[in-house]
Amino acid sequence: MSRSATVVDVAAAAGVSRQTVSNVLNAPDVVAPATRERVERAIATLGYRPHASARRLRTRQSSTLGVRLDPVLNGISGAVLDRFLHALVESADGRGMRILLFTAADPADEIEQFGRLVDGSDVDGFVLTSTFHDDPRTSWLLEHDIPFVTFGRPWGLPDMESAPFPWVDVDGAAGLRDATRHLLQLDRHRIAFLGWPAPSGQGDERRRGWRDEMRVRLPASEADQLDLACEDDVTAAARTVSEAIARGRSFDAVVCASDTLAIGARIATGGSVPVVGYDNTPVAAALGLSSIEQPLIEAARSAIELLMGASGRSVLPPTAGHRLLAPRPVWRT
Amino acid sequence: MSRSATVVDVAAAAGVSRQTVSNVLNAPDVVAPATRERVERAIATLGYRPHASARRLRTRQSSTLGVRLDPVLNGISGAVLDRFLHALVESADGRGMRILLFTAADPADEIEQFGRLVDGSDVDGFVLTSTFHDDPRTSWLLEHDIPFVTFGRPWGLPDMESAPFPWVDVDGAAGLRDATRHLLQLDRHRIAFLGWPAPSGQGDERRRGWRDEMRVRLPASEADQLDLACEDDVTAAARTVSEAIARGRSFDAVVCASDTLAIGARIATGGSVPVVGYDNTPVAAALGLSSIEQPLIEAARSAIELLMGASGRSVLPPTAGHRLLAPRPVWRT
Repeated sequence: MSRSATVVDVAAAAGVSRQTVSNVLNAPDVVAPATRERVERAIATLGYRPHASARRLRTRQSSTLGVRLDPVLNGISGAVLDRFLHALVESADGRGMRILLFTAADPADEIEQFGRLVDGSDVDGFVLTSTFHDDPRTSWLLEHDIPFVTFGRPWGLPDMESAPFPWVDVDGAAGLRDATRHLLQLDRHRIAFLGWPAPSGQGDERRRGWRDEMRVRLPASEADQLDLACEDDVTAAARTVSEAIARGRSFDAVVCASDTLAIGARIATGGSVPVVGYDNTPVAAALGLSSIEQPLIEAARSAIELLMGASGRSVLPPTAGHRLLAPRPVWRT
Repeated sequence: MSRSATVVDVAAAAGVSRQTVSNVLNAPDVVAPATRERVERAIATLGYRPHASARRLRTRQSSTLGVRLDPVLNGISGAVLDRFLHALVESADGRGMRILLFTAADPADEIEQFGRLVDGSDVDGFVLTSTFHDDPRTSWLLEHDIPFVTFGRPWGLPDMESAPFPWVDVDGAAGLRDATRHLLQLDRHRIAFLGWPAPSGQGDERRRGWRDEMRVRLPASEADQLDLACEDDVTAAARTVSEAIARGRSFDAVVCASDTLAIGARIATGGSVPVVGYDNTPVAAALGLSSIEQPLIEAARSAIELLMGASGRSVLPPTAGHRLLAPRPVWRT
């Protein structure tokens, strides 16, 4: 840094003012041809590289996408968003884009950060994660005509497929359908579901996948008995499953909305029935738990494509499109 | 974004050229006072906010720190660097700094990225993670007088305490000493260590902590027998411990250089002896394994302080200082 030529060096070498060098770089038309040539020769001789901020100022592009990162990483399942971030940095790099991280206390604060980053032209757009019902962030970005894509569906919209902004998500219902069907083929007949209390975008989707398959096997009232829910915590999950057993609910397998819940279910059942988790975290691998893996590399690539087109090098004006990706069960015995 | 006033709007309102508006912002001395006043009035009336890139160009500050993020997240222990990143974003935010992520294939590529980011004034400095013996990255940054701090010691330097650049690290030797001492107090006498093959900066440190405590309890030749090593993989760890048992090595506890190794040790011993991991990952918590926790929030805060001083808002010229933080064993039974 200390060795590279600056505007001052170029000005001295060409015998002109700094303003003239700046004019040659930013408004060459206002500089006399002979002067311009002298400055350009000095630039070439000294190997001066115009400042990227200046280049970006001319193009009004930051080649940067903003992503919120929470101050604290949440237990087992929170690692999924980190894996998405790793994949996103890689996908963005392939298009000459960088990722700028910021933090926010809540959605209102996040919106304020959006405003600051956009006012400063620090980012060309945003990748939002962890969407939720009545998400105020997407409305704000739409209103201000700012390009963005969400990793997560626009929960709560009556017709998500024609949402006015692009989103990419993983089809949790399909994941739970696959897992449930596989267990039915292995002659398990009374498969319980352990999820989160409604309403929960992802949680309700995953429950729906399980119910779709159980519907044709069990009367609704019996399926209701096997529909368990608690917060995403190992101890709460173990307690919920133990209580269900104590109340005489009989089941021969458990499919879960997360690996955290699956660990609790495994503890409560002591390995007596198959348990399937969701997210295929390192914990599931270490414990030999089957789990449903989200295609995070494909999700990141899709997010970039929805923002930048199939092969472009800059963020496009806001569009609407979506990709619902199929997850992949990983079976371990 | 589409609604905010631009330089073009200001120029039209003031009846001047865009270049004149730019001159008022960047080189007011070259503009006639009356013209300058007219432009400044237009800026105020329209609420025009000069572009952040332009502001940064003037101050030559990006208020941004660069951090490399690997494309793929590495299993169980890789999550520690993610937890550090979360804490770093939070600490940096408190000083008005953002984190820019980039990716690199290897150290040579990372150095090329350093050059590009610094040439473009995209960052004011770097936070490096995962230092290793003969790390070419630190030499390059020192040579180019670029501010940086490492999370990880300058392994291989004869005197790390007087390294020519700032670093923060966690005292793994102290962590293993604490764990070993605690087990000795619980009447365990033959404590094995499972680590990584030498040379490994962190791994050798952690082994040293264990040996420091065992030295006074066991003859060196016996301690050697309990000094086990393999790559950081659950299956390899289980095999290594099983083979040690098969060869007649007798031990009544195992302390490990990582939670990954500890899971393997737990599998091989079937819970018959206490096993202590390192990093206190969610896996250790879920399995009820004791583990040594790194103070990552304090590490992130220290990294920022070494780069920016106790309370400043900008990166200081390169300094040298270091912080060796004590980890905290988390005991689970």
